[in-house]
Amino acid sequence: MIKILVDAMGGDNAPAAPIEGAVKALENDKELYIILAGRQEVIEAELAKYNYDAARLEIMDCRDVIDMNDIPTEAIRKNESSLVRSFRLLKNDAEVAGLVTAGSTGATIAAGQLILGRIRGIKRPALCPAIPNIRGSYTLLCDCGANAECKPAMLCQFAVLASAYASAGFGINNAKVGLVNNGTEEHKGDPLHQQTYQLLKKMDVINFEGNIEGRDIMIGDVDVAVCDGFSGNIALKSIEGCGKLILSVLKKEATSSLSSKIGSLFLMKGFRRMRARLDFEAVGGALLLGVKKVVIKSHGSSKARTITASIENAANIYRGNLIGKVEDMLSRVDWDNLIPKEE
Amino acid sequence: MIKILVDAMGGDNAPAAPIEGAVKALENDKELYIILAGRQEVIEAELAKYNYDAARLEIMDCRDVIDMNDIPTEAIRKNESSLVRSFRLLKNDAEVAGLVTAGSTGATIAAGQLILGRIRGIKRPALCPAIPNIRGSYTLLCDCGANAECKPAMLCQFAVLASAYASAGFGINNAKVGLVNNGTEEHKGDPLHQQTYQLLKKMDVINFEGNIEGRDIMIGDVDVAVCDGFSGNIALKSIEGCGKLILSVLKKEATSSLSSKIGSLFLMKGFRRMRARLDFEAVGGALLLGVKKVVIKSHGSSKARTITASIENAANIYRGNLIGKVEDMLSRVDWDNLIPKEE
Repeated sequence: MIKILVDAMGGDNAPAAPIEGAVKALENDKELYIILAGRQEVIEAELAKYNYDAARLEIMDCRDVIDMNDIPTEAIRKNESSLVRSFRLLKNDAEVAGLVTAGSTGATIAAGQLILGRIRGIKRPALCPAIPNIRGSYTLLCDCGANAECKPAMLCQFAVLASAYASAGFGINNAKVGLVNNGTEEHKGDPLHQQTYQLLKKMDVINFEGNIEGRDIMIGDVDVAVCDGFSGNIALKSIEGCGKLILSVLKKEATSSLSSKIGSLFLMKGFRRMRARLDFEAVGGALLLGVKKVVIKSHGSSKARTITASIENAANIYRGNLIGKVEDMLSRVDWDNLIPKEE
Repeated sequence: MIKILVDAMGGDNAPAAPIEGAVKALENDKELYIILAGRQEVIEAELAKYNYDAARLEIMDCRDVIDMNDIPTEAIRKNESSLVRSFRLLKNDAEVAGLVTAGSTGATIAAGQLILGRIRGIKRPALCPAIPNIRGSYTLLCDCGANAECKPAMLCQFAVLASAYASAGFGINNAKVGLVNNGTEEHKGDPLHQQTYQLLKKMDVINFEGNIEGRDIMIGDVDVAVCDGFSGNIALKSIEGCGKLILSVLKKEATSSLSSKIGSLFLMKGFRRMRARLDFEAVGGALLLGVKKVVIKSHGSSKARTITASIENAANIYRGNLIGKVEDMLSRVDWDNLIPKEE
């Protein structure tokens, strides 16, 4: 039995999408047990639409909701909100394996840090989405926005965290790690990236392959792309914008005339495979790495299938022993020796 | 008559592509006069393949070539190289309007700065490509990689430079300017971007619309996306990688079976329009902004049609009076008052 908490009130499509997503996940994975956090009557009304195994689902009644406009540090003082109560339960109940929320990113990071807490030795948590790549697998982009300002030691920890995720979530041991920089040569980048390069090179616990460029996130050969949170966020969102533009142009062209409509019918299967291949949401949202349990932040616009994928991925990562793997890898780095002084 | 210099030896496909591209540009634009810089005998052998108006083409015989492996600051000491001699001619001959090269980016920036020179008042030149956007026009991304380390004053100048480019190159006056940040709220970003936001807000000479995210480069509503050169480079290359991945998957699916091949035939026109719509190279390469003349750095892998587009765009930008517009806009900013002290 794997217990996963689902924030029923988080995201643009709440409560319908998180609840439908949870029901579907229960159906797919008989080992799952789900706790839905949110207003009891709202959740019950939604649940009434579905058949589900009631023995594996419970509701944690929470009377308050965090708004997307709430400032994160203030939001996490909303003690009765579904998000804050979820993080408290996650911290205090050893049986709860993980949390999925499509709510405020800032509040999720703040609550992860301040309520759940960081894994011992971790300086700052990081957000890590899985980006589809040309090899038909995923590149783990870490950090994609939790930390606008980074130091070299933080980037070294992002490399460890995402390598542990590659192992726990995707069965990739000794994941290939690249540092996202403005060129592949060793001397490239600003001082942050130059210093980080030198440190990553010295770390035996990861498999560092050198600098990579933005294009290598999708068409390169690494499993982990280490980024400062500022440029990682810009990379992720640039990719998102590019994907949306191309697919919208393709859609328009595919339906622009009778001839294109006929063509599209013949290409239906191919288009479908293409969509599956490029699906950002096949593994759900971004993993919040560095905190003491599995926390997945799903996109604010998540539909039910993304929530389902996030829940299944959370269970999968838990089975893969993410936290144990992070702790093990961290213990094998002599941080004081690697990064002297105040760093 | 508009005289454009073309580096016949620069890029992966030199000398064939630059020379074919130049011949084609001469044919398209009867006002053009082209000077091909490179080894005379090599250029003559290539030119022998084409019919062209010999009265509008001359060769500047240069015996040396800059290699992609040369370190930029050393490369520009190669006095007899096609690139260095081109920049010297550009500086010294008032009749030469601009330069197109697909050679080393680093050497082009260094030569632009050290040989041709910056426009009075400009702190650092910037590279500015035109990215296709959802409105069917282009977003000017400035800087995309000339400056890995930036200060707020530099980003303010990038906004001015790219706004002048929007006017001179695309006829867009009062271009909408966005600052690429890790979120749209005013307080977002690291200190560099927070400070830059406050300065851009005060500048009357540009039309600042606030922060934008990476996705807005392609699907947003601004004409100019201001970036520090580090994250700008990562944004540009992430977009490139995403585009390549999607188009390669599409290509594979479109030819994967008999049915998809039939579908593709029906969709041929649509695919072609789509390709044109998403064509990064329709306006050629990135403009090197902030130097005293029009310099376009075409992608190292440029084919002939990209060189042609770069040449035509250089002439177009010259006709639009880029340098005059930059000088005029710069003169309307009270820099000492905007950015006090050592900034």
